[in-house]
This record gives sequence, C-alpha cells and structure tokens, in this order.
Amino acid sequence: MPLTPDQQAEVDAQRAQTVPTRRAVSPGMEAHLYTAIPVLDHGFVRVIDYMGDDAAICQAARVSYGRGTKSVQNDEGLIRYLMRHWHSTPFEMCEVKLHVKLPVFVARQWIRHRTANVNEYSARYSILDREFYIPAPEHLAAQSVVNNQGRGAALEGEEAARVLDILKTDANRAYDHYEQMISQDGQAGLARELARMNLPANIYTQWYWKVDLHNLLHFLRLRADAHAQYEIRVYADAICKVVADWVPFAYKAFEDYRMGGATMSATALDCVRRMLKGEEVTQETSGMSKGEWREFMDTLG
Amino acid sequence: MPLTPDQQAEVDAQRAQTVPTRRAVSPGMEAHLYTAIPVLDHGFVRVIDYMGDDAAICQAARVSYGRGTKSVQNDEGLIRYLMRHWHSTPFEMCEVKLHVKLPVFVARQWIRHRTANVNEYSARYSILDREFYIPAPEHLAAQSVVNNQGRGAALEGEEAARVLDILKTDANRAYDHYEQMISQDGQAGLARELARMNLPANIYTQWYWKVDLHNLLHFLRLRADAHAQYEIRVYADAICKVVADWVPFAYKAFEDYRMGGATMSATALDCVRRMLKGEEVTQETSGMSKGEWREFMDTLG
Amino acid sequence: MPLTPDQQAEVDAQRAQTVPTRRAVSPGMEAHLYTAIPVLDHGFVRVIDYMGDDAAICQAARVSYGRGTKSVQNDEGLIRYLMRHWHSTPFEMCEVKLHVKLPVFVARQWIRHRTANVNEYSARYSILDREFYIPAPEHLAAQSVVNNQGRGAALEGEEAARVLDILKTDANRAYDHYEQMISQDGQAGLARELARMNLPANIYTQWYWKVDLHNLLHFLRLRADAHAQYEIRVYADAICKVVADWVPFAYKAFEDYRMGGATMSATALDCVRRMLKGEEVTQETSGMSKGEWREFMDTLG
Amino acid sequence: MPLTPDQQAEVDAQRAQTVPTRRAVSPGMEAHLYTAIPVLDHGFVRVIDYMGDDAAICQAARVSYGRGTKSVQNDEGLIRYLMRHWHSTPFEMCEVKLHVKLPVFVARQWIRHRTANVNEYSARYSILDREFYIPAPEHLAAQSVVNNQGRGAALEGEEAARVLDILKTDANRAYDHYEQMISQDGQAGLARELARMNLPANIYTQWYWKVDLHNLLHFLRLRADAHAQYEIRVYADAICKVVADWVPFAYKAFEDYRMGGATMSATALDCVRRMLKGEEVTQETSGMSKGEWREFMDTLG
Repeated sequence: MPLTPDQQAEVDAQRAQTVPTRRAVSPGMEAHLYTAIPVLDHGFVRVIDYMGDDAAICQAARVSYGRGTKSVQNDEGLIRYLMRHWHSTPFEMCEVKLHVKLPVFVARQWIRHRTANVNEYSARYSILDREFYIPAPEHLAAQSVVNNQGRGAALEGEEAARVLDILKTDANRAYDHYEQMISQDGQAGLARELARMNLPANIYTQWYWKVDLHNLLHFLRLRADAHAQYEIRVYADAICKVVADWVPFAYKAFEDYRMGGATMSATALDCVRRMLKGEEVTQETSGMSKGEWREFMDTLG
Repeated sequence: MPLTPDQQAEVDAQRAQTVPTRRAVSPGMEAHLYTAIPVLDHGFVRVIDYMGDDAAICQAARVSYGRGTKSVQNDEGLIRYLMRHWHSTPFEMCEVKLHVKLPVFVARQWIRHRTANVNEYSARYSILDREFYIPAPEHLAAQSVVNNQGRGAALEGEEAARVLDILKTDANRAYDHYEQMISQDGQAGLARELARMNLPANIYTQWYWKVDLHNLLHFLRLRADAHAQYEIRVYADAICKVVADWVPFAYKAFEDYRMGGATMSATALDCVRRMLKGEEVTQETSGMSKGEWREFMDTLG
Repeated sequence: MPLTPDQQAEVDAQRAQTVPTRRAVSPGMEAHLYTAIPVLDHGFVRVIDYMGDDAAICQAARVSYGRGTKSVQNDEGLIRYLMRHWHSTPFEMCEVKLHVKLPVFVARQWIRHRTANVNEYSARYSILDREFYIPAPEHLAAQSVVNNQGRGAALEGEEAARVLDILKTDANRAYDHYEQMISQDGQAGLARELARMNLPANIYTQWYWKVDLHNLLHFLRLRADAHAQYEIRVYADAICKVVADWVPFAYKAFEDYRMGGATMSATALDCVRRMLKGEEVTQETSGMSKGEWREFMDTLG
Repeated sequence: MPLTPDQQAEVDAQRAQTVPTRRAVSPGMEAHLYTAIPVLDHGFVRVIDYMGDDAAICQAARVSYGRGTKSVQNDEGLIRYLMRHWHSTPFEMCEVKLHVKLPVFVARQWIRHRTANVNEYSARYSILDREFYIPAPEHLAAQSVVNNQGRGAALEGEEAARVLDILKTDANRAYDHYEQMISQDGQAGLARELARMNLPANIYTQWYWKVDLHNLLHFLRLRADAHAQYEIRVYADAICKVVADWVPFAYKAFEDYRMGGATMSATALDCVRRMLKGEEVTQETSGMSKGEWREFMDTLG
C-alpha cells in the first residue's frame, strides 16, 4: 500500500476540489490528477499537474492568436505531419509534472534522461522508509545466455526461493542496521547522509519529475520498448496510458510513427527495394552483419 | 495596434470561457491569461498558459503528497531559504508559456537564453506583416562615449529627424521591394525564404516561448537589469509584473536576493570588513582595478 | 574574400605551429585546423578545436582505462551498433569548435539547435562589415507552387535581374545609412545597438559554435537534408566533409543509418510486409494519407 | 589501489606517447593527462581529454581570427571582466573529459548537475567489483544537532567501532550474496540487472564525465563549498586543483568572484550602507530573519 491514511486523505481532499480556469483543460488528464497508479510492489505514478493538450500543440505550431480556429480533423492531420517530419518544438509546448515512487536502481536509469526537472526526496535530510522492491516470482529472471544485457526465463524452485530469501533478508538487515546507526538513544548517532550508504539499491525513493511532451515521448520510446529492463518498463507503460488520455492525437501518432515504426538503414532500404523487385536477398548478399540482418528480419516480421 | 479585430474577437472569446480544473490555480495569473500587454510600438506579451504557483514550489521542495499542508507563512520562509541558497530545482517546477511579438533584433538577443522552448512564426512559409519598430524620439539614444556597449543621451533636433526619416523610409522601401519580389502577377515570384533576406532587423516577428520559473528569473535578472538594451528591457519589465502576480512570494524573494542584491568578490568583502573596522580604503589600497572599484563604490551607493 | 591579409597572416602563423600533446589526435582533423572552407559568397567554416576521435567514442562506451585495447575492426562494429541502437552518450564524448561566418537569416535558423555553445560577434559593441549575401543566379529560386515551404526553378531573364538589383541596391543603401547614422563627425552618432536595426537579414555575422558529435549529427541530419533551405545546407555539407575526416567510422555509420536511412511508421511497415507477400497495395488500401503515401513511394524509390 | 597492474600498464603506455597537434595546448593540463588522482579509499579522478585554455576563452569572447593577438595581461583582465559580469558563454568554450571512480551515493548527488555528458559503467551488462567506501574514522561523523542536513563531530570509541563493523560486514555479505545469485555453476543464475539491487550505496561505480568549464565551475562552487557533503567535496577539491593548472586566470577569477565571494541581498546591502555610516544595526533592526542575520554576520566575519 503506497499511501498512508493521512496521505490518502490529503490526496482525496485535493481531488475533491475544483477551481475555474481559463487555461486549456484536458478532460482525460483531469481524471488522472492526484490518483496514484500503482507500479511494482510499493511504487506509483501520480499526475500532479499538466500544461496543454492536442490543440495547444497545433496552436504553437501555427503561432496563432486563439484556440479552436481550425477543425479537430485538421488538428490530427497537423499533429501527424509534425511527428512524421520530426518537428519537435510544438510537442515541447505541453508539459507534465509527475510524482513517482520507484526503487533506487530504477531511478538511476531514469535520471539518465537529462532534459527534465527533478526534485528527489533527500536522504541527507530525511529518514527513508523501510520499503524495498522484491520481484514477483515470475519476474525473477535468469541472466540471458545470448545477450549480456538481457534476461532469460524465470528462475524456479529452490534457486528462486534462495534468491528471494537473500533479497528479503539482506534488505531488512540493512535497514535494521541503518536504524541502529542513526538511532539517538543516549548516543550521537551516525549522520543520515552517511548511514544511507548501507541501504541497497532496491529501496524505494520518490521524486517530482517534470518534463515536456517531446522529451517524455523520447523517454517512452526507449523505456516502454521490449528491450528496456522490466522494472522501468512498467513505469513507462503506466505513463503511456496517461499520455493516451492527455493528448490522444499525439499519442496515436507516436504509436504509429515511433513505437510501432522502425528506422531502416540505407542498406536495409536497398534490400527492401531489391526484394520488392523479386530478388532473393540473404544475409550474405545483403551487405549487413549477422546482427543487423537478424534485426532486419524481425522488422519485416 | 497589435491585434486585428478578428484576432481580438478570438482572444475575447477565449478569455470569456472558464472550465473547472483540479490543478493548482494562481488567481493573479488567471487575470493575465489571453490579455495582450503592449510593449514598444507594435509588440506585446501574452500569457497563454502556466503551471504551478508559490505552493507548488514548496510542494516539490518537500516532495510532499498534497498541497496546503504547511501554513502560508512557512511557504514564504521556505521560498526565501531556497532562493538564498541557490536551490534551483523547486523553481523549475513552475512553467509559463508566453506569446510574444518583438522586433527581430530583440529576438536575436532573447534566443541566446537556450533553456526554453520556442516556436517562431516562419518567414519561409508565411508572409511577414509590414510592421517595424521605430524608436520613440526619447529613446533615439546616441552612442555612449565612455562605454562601447552603451547609450548616451537622446539625439536631438535635425540629427534625430534625419535618423527617424532613414529608419522609416528604409523599412518601408525594403517592405515594398519584399512584396514586389514575392508578388505573383503573371510572374513566378521569388521564394519567400529568399525574399525575407531584404527585410531589416526592426521588422516584427512573433513566437511562443515556454520556460520554467528558474530560467525565467535568470532571464529577468539579466534583461531587466539597467545595463540591458532598452528594447529588450521593456519586455523583461512587462514579464516581471506578470511574475509578481503569478508567484508573489518567489518574486519578492527574487527582488531582494537577485535584482536588488549584489555579488561581492573576496577582495570586495575584505574591503568591507576593513572599512567596518574604521580603515580608510582607497582604490589604490583595495586590490581592485579601477573598473572594479567604481562598480564597488556604486554597490555601496 | 572572407579574410583580410592580416587575418590570413594570423591564421597561417597558427597553422604553422604544432605542439606535442598526450591527447587523442585525429590526423584528418589536424589538416582542417585553422583552414577556412569557403561557403556562399562571403562565408566560411573554420575548425578551431576538437576533442576525441573514433577510438574515444568506443573508450567512453566501454568506460575503459586506456585506448586501443580493442582492434580497429571491433571499434567500427561497436560504433555501428551504438548508432543503430540510438545510444547517444558515447557520441557526446567528442566535441568540435567551429568559427562560422554566415548571413543573419541563416544564423536565425541555425540557432534553433539549442544544445550547443555560441559566442556571436556583437553588433551592440562593434561595427559590422559591409558584406551581404547575394544569391548566385542559379540559386535565385522561385516560390514553389506545390509547397509553401519550398523552392521552384530559378528565376530567369528580366525578373532575375530585377530581384538581384533590388537585393544589391537595398543592401548597399541600408549600409550607407547605417554608417551615416553612427558617424561621429561632430555629431553624437546613433548608438550602434540601435543603428544595426536598419541592416537587412542578408548581412553576414560570425560566431564561435561548439557542439558535441551527437548533437552535431542531429543538426546535419536536418540541415544537410534535401528539404533544408539551400543557404544553410551548404554549411551543413561543408561540415559533413569535416566530420568524415574527423571520425570516419562514426560518419560512415551516420550516412548508412541516418542520412541514407528512413523511418517507417507501423502502417508503412505493414504495407511493406503485405507487398513482400505479393499483395498489390495502393494508397486507398494502405491506411495512409495521400501525403504519407507519396513520401512512402519516394522511400521505396 | 584503484588500478590493476594491467590498467596501470595501459595508462603508462598512454602517458608515454605524445603526438604533435595544431590545437591549443595547456602545459599544466598535459601533466595531468592519464594520471589517476586518488580520492577517498578506492576512488580517483583522471583527466582523459580537454579542449581550450585561458587564451581560448578570450579568443571566443572576441570572436577573433587567431590566437595570441592580445597580450597576456589583457587576457587576464578580460577574463576577470567576463567572470564579474556573469558572461558565461566564453567559459563554455573550454571542455574537459574526466574518468571518475566514486561511490554510488556520491554519483547520485553528482548526476543532479544535468548539463554534462555521462557514460557510466553498466551493471546490467557487467559485473561490479568488490569495492566499497568505508569512511576513515575521522570522517565517521555524527548527525548534526542544529542542522538536519549536516554533520557534527566524529563518532568515538565503541559506537564508532560498531558502525564501522556494520558497514564492512554488510557490504561484504551483500557482495557475497550478489556473487552467489549470479553464479552459474550448473544453475541459471539471476540476471545481472536484478542481482545488482542487493548492493549497497557505498559500492564504487565509475563513469566518463564531460563538461564545459562554465558548468564545471558552477558544479565546483556548489560541491567544493563547506556545506557540501564531505564525500563529494573531496572530488570537487581534486578537480579544483586540476582546473587551477588548466586555466590559471579563469580559476583565479573564480576563486575571487565565486568561491571567496558572497551574494548580498538588497536588505543586506542596505545594512552594510547603514553600518558604514556609523549606525549600530542589530538583527531586530536589520529586516532579516535570524537565519539570514547569522549568515550575514558570517559573511562580514
């Protein structure tokens, strides 16, 4: 349960209250505001605020004076055109602010996306909670034997049990020791900024993360991808659903041109052209390495 | 007159309409929405959208679950603390989107601030309007004789008249020729993307500009400063008034710590300490160059 | 002639001097250092400095201790892998600093690429030279009749002559008046920061521009593209040649995966798959708009 | 010992080799190249590459054609002027690339500085080494009793011994379990990307970090400050020494205007003026809060 009763009461009070505004309002996004979408065992994604909607993308692209001067049909066509031709600045005109609770090792991947604003809970200043990510048995994956950076099937039986036991026991012991080091019963107590170094990377942290739609879609393309680590992909998947409700035209174009699309090299395009003319092309005659050819075959599915 | 009747009607319709939202609402900012604040002879600043308020700064700094959990007094103290200690990330959690109409030579200075999102009206695609910045007589300043990058007193009499005549005549002739080059009465007409090169730097352009509060305050510190060129300073001044209404606590802290404050070097601090002990410090004994000493004397005013 | 004799002498002296360094050295790039590559009628691109080479990309990707631990063949394969899978950070580990002289309307497009460092010649502080871009007759293109943002064939005969005459005459008159306004023969003289507003957008400016290889390749993909405006494309083309000499493996991968490649949407991929199975796919049955279909047909060549 | 014999041999070979270059060379920096400066118990900072020197800052500020056209004295004066007046772009024209080995909890603070390029050693792909930061006894600080975000005196006696024992034992046990989980003796072995979550935040990681001089000085101002956490401050201190050798004029100006300087608010400046006129100003009559007044008194030292 990610929220305490007090926190839930605050959130509920927040949700119950509405105020009139002259700004662009996205009805799909209003429904998400202040709702915690659960992710992993203790994590969540909460929409705190947003700016703009599909119409705002078009308004900026046109540098226009008002809103709604063009038909909705035109808006979708324009958004598809902008996405297809890599016009990024109109998508930068929408912004979203999320409150995310996530394991530290996921946070460390996430923060590599630098074009965003972040305020993280400070373990120099505050005491972290005893909450650790422990994978569900079906996600306790073995190291891939074909790919250094991948996962194979889930561990089973005794080995799975042993691993789960290690993760749980070590996490709790580390937290017990963390508490003992900072405890102040008649002792000085180790500085929080030092004591935290004993905590493992599956402890949960949280942050406010604010990003524009263009950079968010870039993040989602990489992190909602099948090759992303499962533990960050579930956050990206949750955010994809939010974006689909927020800017439906932009999200649909993103699905068509980015998530479901593929970039082909000059060599690959040449192969497609030869194949369409009836030529039998093989890896040997393709000009591609084995790895590229395998990925090319996957694309042509 | 910056807006046509049609544009004004669109803007008025936009202003008249309000929709309920669960988001943070800044009453002072709602009053600005879709209002064109006139700047220079044909320019304006319009607030298109905003995200966050003073409370949102504190909420992010605390990575808290709700809003309003702390008293307003605490919020102001926290904001002052954050500003004083250069904590920039909480201020990045507020965002504003402006529609600005401005002369090209002002736009060229403005764009040097890179951490912002911009969509500019395209003169490759569209035809620019016949609108040029012509300085009011009192701003027709002479080159400073002491500072290569400064202005002296306003030109007067015949010289002022001659300059104004040049600016007006050249602008109109350039625009006449621009129209003639792109005109298509039985001729091909020069490409717009080429014809625009004949237009002078006082022609007006316009853009959507979106920026977070931290970077906006940095922009304002440099551009609302007495050393900034007058023609960009009036835009910064207009935006300062908007920010004061949007996030009053943050703006007040900004005025105290940034606009009205000063950075002193180690050498300058040492001089202050010596002076407070009663020593008579001169430029010669200060360790500063003449330029630094003059600026130091100005600071001690 | 872009350089004065004095400037040329300085540049020659600079070129003649070499100093030993322990840093990574790219022989292809050393040959470019301090050479002005002419672009347009008065412009140029000069390589001022650079950091890194192909091996440095691999060294960073491997977070390795030394250089040259892997064979050159491995380096090329790794670079192709990184490019194909959109790993951008290793390419960010190379950096280049250019001195560019370019017309103001080109500079205004260029500066939209924000992830770079820029120092531009200041027309507030200094006096600009009388140098204007006047298109060669074959680049005096008509407005495209099918594309608002494009060019058609070159103007001819009397119309071409008329346009060239306007551009030359207006530029020179504007410059004459600029000089007269700032002249100081017994008069105050208008401030430089104001007088510049009379100058048209084809006047030349210059700047130092520093950018990392990842962002440079992104710039080149957009600006060396056939749809980019001719006057910026020639700068991009000149820089492409420099990059090919600097980091030959990275540039070759860029040509294959970016410049010569194409992004296909999910819809387009589906059409390719259907076509490879022998189905006759038309725009009507493709699920694409007419514009998308036309671009898709172009891609399949 | 941060480097293995093999790594040291590679580094030594690298150092021994020099190649002539036409680029700007900083003799002070050449001496640092490929030398590992030890930091903490297992960490280091290594200079991998650099671009520019003091003269390059001036060359960019002047957008000049050559180097060395002005006297060295002028260069120092110009650099001081640029620093004093917050002209940041000339300092962005220098760049440095470092290889840093550091504990994960330090890396998490460091990465908050977003305007830099980073390639970190991947624990998804590779296996981390058994190296943990264990504080020296004199840095085993107690939690501050006056400041939530600070340290008091060092722990002593039994309490210190207990804390050190916890840190060492837990780190080694966590690493033993990490090895056991990924071991593959007849078992599948947990995926590396999962096993790493058991490792505590004092384990060492390493990265390539590339940053321009302006952003580096901003980092140093915050992280070499007395209020920064000791474990990141020692890295900043090591880098300060490198910068002092690389760009001596810029570093000296930085020390005077930033590290040794102070920003005074409008209120503080007003108090200084009153004090210089002989008025006895107290916290009550100052207009400052108690916290601000205390900091103000510290500044006047």
